[in-house]
Amino acid sequence: MSRVSCAACKYQRRKCTSECVLAPYFPANQPKKFQNAHRLFGVRNMVKILDELKDEDQKSDAMKSIIFESDMREKFPVYGCVECISYLHQQLQITLQELQDVLSQLEFYRQHPTATYPNFDR
Amino acid sequence: MSRVSCAACKYQRRKCTSECVLAPYFPANQPKKFQNAHRLFGVRNMVKILDELKDEDQKSDAMKSIIFESDMREKFPVYGCVECISYLHQQLQITLQELQDVLSQLEFYRQHPTATYPNFDR
Repeated sequence: MSRVSCAACKYQRRKCTSECVLAPYFPANQPKKFQNAHRLFGVRNMVKILDELKDEDQKSDAMKSIIFESDMREKFPVYGCVECISYLHQQLQITLQELQDVLSQLEFYRQHPTATYPNFDR
Repeated sequence: MSRVSCAACKYQRRKCTSECVLAPYFPANQPKKFQNAHRLFGVRNMVKILDELKDEDQKSDAMKSIIFESDMREKFPVYGCVECISYLHQQLQITLQELQDVLSQLEFYRQHPTATYPNFDR
């Protein structure tokens, strides 16, 4: 029975065997996914990462993170996935500040239960 | 005047010239920084990323993100810098939930200015 080459083997124009360690992560119908990962890390480095992990779930999670990093680098050539980290960090700071503000309002209400309620709305 | 080889040239046992594009990012006294980046991306891919960016500030930012990703991959072999993204995402969700809870308490106080104040402390 003929075997459909994975995107990695197809791109490298080589025969894809049942031993191909990249096949589970790069299906033939998603060539872009492999191209981004190949471009950023190279096949050798990806295989090395896989070789160093014994657990199948860990291999799968590692490849998901590798593919994510590659896709982010394609989208953001300067910052790669640090773009996501910066965004999340910024959102967290904004939300923490908002929480602090609301806690201050709450404290005011607790301290002045009968006071006229100022409008703290932002 | 003799030039001190950068960590990249030292590691590759080659002469470091004033044209070395990696020298600004890999000082001789920080060999680990280069080893991690070399291990994850390889010299060729790093040089390619630098070649594709024209602006010096962008090159510098790109190398900072590359070095960060490499260091994170060394620290977290399975998730790399996705570990940071997951952590920040989780913290953001917790903080947003806390904000939502405190806003609900505040709304209660506004709606019931003379009520006995329940203890919402978590």
